[in-house]
Amino acid sequence: MDRRTFFRKAAVSGAGAAAATALAAPAIAQSSPKVSWRLTSSFPKSLDTIYGGAEDIAKHVSDATDGNFTIQPFAAAEIVPAMQAADAVSNATVEMCHTCSYYFVGKDPTFAIGTAIPFGLNARLSNAWFYQGNGNKLMNEFYATQKIYGLPAGNTGAQMGGWFRKEINTVDDFKGVKMRIAGIAGRVLEKLGAVPQQIAGGDIYPALEKGTIDAAEWVGPYDDYKLGFYKVAKYYYYPAFWEGGPVIHAFVNLDKWNSLPPAYQAALTNACAFANTNMMAKYDTKNPTAIKQIVSQGTTLRPFSQDILEACYNAAMEVYKDISSKNEWFKKIYEDQVAFKKEAYLWMQLSEYTYDTFMMIQQRNGKL
Amino acid sequence: MDRRTFFRKAAVSGAGAAAATALAAPAIAQSSPKVSWRLTSSFPKSLDTIYGGAEDIAKHVSDATDGNFTIQPFAAAEIVPAMQAADAVSNATVEMCHTCSYYFVGKDPTFAIGTAIPFGLNARLSNAWFYQGNGNKLMNEFYATQKIYGLPAGNTGAQMGGWFRKEINTVDDFKGVKMRIAGIAGRVLEKLGAVPQQIAGGDIYPALEKGTIDAAEWVGPYDDYKLGFYKVAKYYYYPAFWEGGPVIHAFVNLDKWNSLPPAYQAALTNACAFANTNMMAKYDTKNPTAIKQIVSQGTTLRPFSQDILEACYNAAMEVYKDISSKNEWFKKIYEDQVAFKKEAYLWMQLSEYTYDTFMMIQQRNGKL
Repeated sequence: MDRRTFFRKAAVSGAGAAAATALAAPAIAQSSPKVSWRLTSSFPKSLDTIYGGAEDIAKHVSDATDGNFTIQPFAAAEIVPAMQAADAVSNATVEMCHTCSYYFVGKDPTFAIGTAIPFGLNARLSNAWFYQGNGNKLMNEFYATQKIYGLPAGNTGAQMGGWFRKEINTVDDFKGVKMRIAGIAGRVLEKLGAVPQQIAGGDIYPALEKGTIDAAEWVGPYDDYKLGFYKVAKYYYYPAFWEGGPVIHAFVNLDKWNSLPPAYQAALTNACAFANTNMMAKYDTKNPTAIKQIVSQGTTLRPFSQDILEACYNAAMEVYKDISSKNEWFKKIYEDQVAFKKEAYLWMQLSEYTYDTFMMIQQRNGKL
Repeated sequence: MDRRTFFRKAAVSGAGAAAATALAAPAIAQSSPKVSWRLTSSFPKSLDTIYGGAEDIAKHVSDATDGNFTIQPFAAAEIVPAMQAADAVSNATVEMCHTCSYYFVGKDPTFAIGTAIPFGLNARLSNAWFYQGNGNKLMNEFYATQKIYGLPAGNTGAQMGGWFRKEINTVDDFKGVKMRIAGIAGRVLEKLGAVPQQIAGGDIYPALEKGTIDAAEWVGPYDDYKLGFYKVAKYYYYPAFWEGGPVIHAFVNLDKWNSLPPAYQAALTNACAFANTNMMAKYDTKNPTAIKQIVSQGTTLRPFSQDILEACYNAAMEVYKDISSKNEWFKKIYEDQVAFKKEAYLWMQLSEYTYDTFMMIQQRNGKL
């Protein structure tokens, strides 16, 4: 009897066969060491979306290990300042953090590619590049130089372009604008005459309120509404061309990662996969209500003009050329991602874009 | 000393503090029962994308449980025919399956909403509805009536509209077309005069080759190229308005699910989350090359006209009205999803759509 025949017969015998394969073996004592880690988040606890990713990771790891591997999340600044999370992981002050890789471009611009670079991948294609392209492989080769192991663990989707006190109608309107903007995008806006600032999420509101800065981008409607930006800036632009689908990472100290039992590595990997999708799902579920709340507060929604996007695109290409000429890691990983992007955006124009376009037309026509 | 001060100090003390919190407790013997399950897939092994989801689930569960909880995947028809996977789970012939919920609309049309219904949610919004909307909750209330517990475990993205031997230029061109089409979409095309057929993936090619059917939709370029449809039909239409972001499900027999230790339930939940994202990533990575291969074989790519999409949209609304008038489960879950969709597609028009549109313009202009 060949295998197919055997199993067909087994299947036919129904419940009996199932009973024979489930829970058949006696419980066996296993070694499951108690591991307790601390995680520093770069986000304030008030943002259940982006801070919530750390809680998801902790819960799903604990649940899958019967509470033997616990991760205690701390909000930004509770034990480590938001912008020092990667250092704290590199030097093992904490075992792991939940952060944006691009906060650490000051150490090396290659960090930016881990999150998002201007005119990079959208959320879905970010997952594709990390999971099935060379993203996880290449970024982890780079992160290893910093004693870090990285796992994608969240995404916000294409972000809003941020809050401006004045209208930005032309490229020239960026001149002299002091703007909170994260990652490599600051260098792009600098080419247009803006003055970029890197400020942690919790500190943006007072800076914008006091006029220390003229503009600020954070994430999107739900988080931005909570942080209250609509009270201190009137214009809300879109899209954040510098954040088409930013990835939030779990960074683990590389030695700590290597010291984990394989089952705990798997539990953490899977928990991060859950957190990754769940954060995007939270944003997609919460942003629609929030954008309506924001508009009801008198905020003016504006798209950046095609001219502005083009100018920023060209400026971004110059920045990439410049960084690539000086940084081998950046060059190697950037070129891999661009090759991926060219192919992916060709395919996305067919079914995906046509489908969404039709659905949006129906939405606008009140037919959904 | 308050908690913040304490941890700040602990952080400053650096590696010592980290050492104190990691691996501090001795290994403790735990009870991890041996559980061996069989999974029947509704897909042929040749499709590493959609069949691969079952392998991902099995590997990630096994890895996270030190090999104590094993799931053995079988291809469609090895132990259970593709279209009987849900029955085999309901009656515990196998503990679980990996399938499309909408294959079982013959039992109850509510099954369709679990995968995709015409003009439903795209892949990202499907995740949002299942994870953070009422999707998982409502569908599992329904699945429980079938002795099934469902977990999203894969997505293909917006599918292609399928392979036609003749051009479909007008709504009338659908008249008399015998088409392999899954789920509730058959009822929509029936209203336009087509003759829908439900055929498992592995059996489509011979039917199309012999002329038993005139048209067939399966998934998208990568799978469709493998199955060879380009050899027997010239026109490849898009999009599949009936599959904007179809979810592939893991169905678990409800009693078997309830009998699992909580840690194994968590391991399986997390493994399915991984498989869910990884399948989408595979499609997004493999489809671009495949669509170029298909075109190089002489296939003609065609979008469905706006008129056709509108006619199908109107037909779909009639179908939903009809089913809702007869089926309380369908009505309740459908209305929840529609409410979610209206909100979500409003928000997606801003940053997400504007960003993607700009990127696609750059792609077409050869500037990416």
